[in-house]
Amino acid sequence: MLYWFVGSDHLRRLLRRHATTVAVITATNGERPVGFTATSFTSVSLDPPLISFSLYRGSSSWPSMAATRHVAVHLLAADQADVARTFAASGIDRFATSVWRCGPYGLPVLDGALAWLVCRVVERIAAGDHTIVVAEPVVGEYVEGTPLIYHNGQYAALV
Amino acid sequence: MLYWFVGSDHLRRLLRRHATTVAVITATNGERPVGFTATSFTSVSLDPPLISFSLYRGSSSWPSMAATRHVAVHLLAADQADVARTFAASGIDRFATSVWRCGPYGLPVLDGALAWLVCRVVERIAAGDHTIVVAEPVVGEYVEGTPLIYHNGQYAALV
Repeated sequence: MLYWFVGSDHLRRLLRRHATTVAVITATNGERPVGFTATSFTSVSLDPPLISFSLYRGSSSWPSMAATRHVAVHLLAADQADVARTFAASGIDRFATSVWRCGPYGLPVLDGALAWLVCRVVERIAAGDHTIVVAEPVVGEYVEGTPLIYHNGQYAALV
Repeated sequence: MLYWFVGSDHLRRLLRRHATTVAVITATNGERPVGFTATSFTSVSLDPPLISFSLYRGSSSWPSMAATRHVAVHLLAADQADVARTFAASGIDRFATSVWRCGPYGLPVLDGALAWLVCRVVERIAAGDHTIVVAEPVVGEYVEGTPLIYHNGQYAALV
């Protein structure tokens, strides 16, 4: 099937072929923790180390992400689909049902992730209705295990 | 294990936990096709549609990617690990052993991909030793199947 993109529907369907690790990005708004599920996490540069993710500017997390100097990126483990769903849900206190602690720079660090990475935000680049956030890893922790994957509209695991 | 990042080694190890679809990005340098394997492909925005990937500026593909107005992004299928290896190999003609045709804008389109997407480059953003390329999808094609995944230094498939 050959498509000319006149809208976002075909692109959305094509992108369902893409699979990637599910991340939860957290920060604080100065008063309370904020966080959201992202499938746009990627490594950008190793020298200097830089990572990126993008966020819809209409999202509830955007005002905090627009202002924060640091973020915590969590790569979810294969058994954390519930955490991914919690941090993608609207109208709930996402931290109320999550196990987390106060980490470096006062950032919320979630329990049970395959890896977490506290990063200093170095650039925010508007791109369409999203903003690409580029950040420098400062401190992190990782354990053995396999990642939670998002593919074709659902959560999956590796063979 | 808690690490402060003073170099790239710990980050590299942590990022091995990340898993993502393998993409091959192609273009031309005006005379012949160029292309490389990337694990940094991600969707950025749906309105307007934008995708991104990043590329090391020291790579052999960089001069072409710095100049081209369009690129073809291929999301590889689970049975295309050989294609991923070919487009990551040095000192070979990557197109000599590949099955491809001349597609829109004269771009090389590889056979057998799960999806391909011709995009207009809209922005190049230097970030450390890489450049993030932001591009607008113009035309694409996709088939049914499952993606090739890169995880923990090797190719994998979904459960």
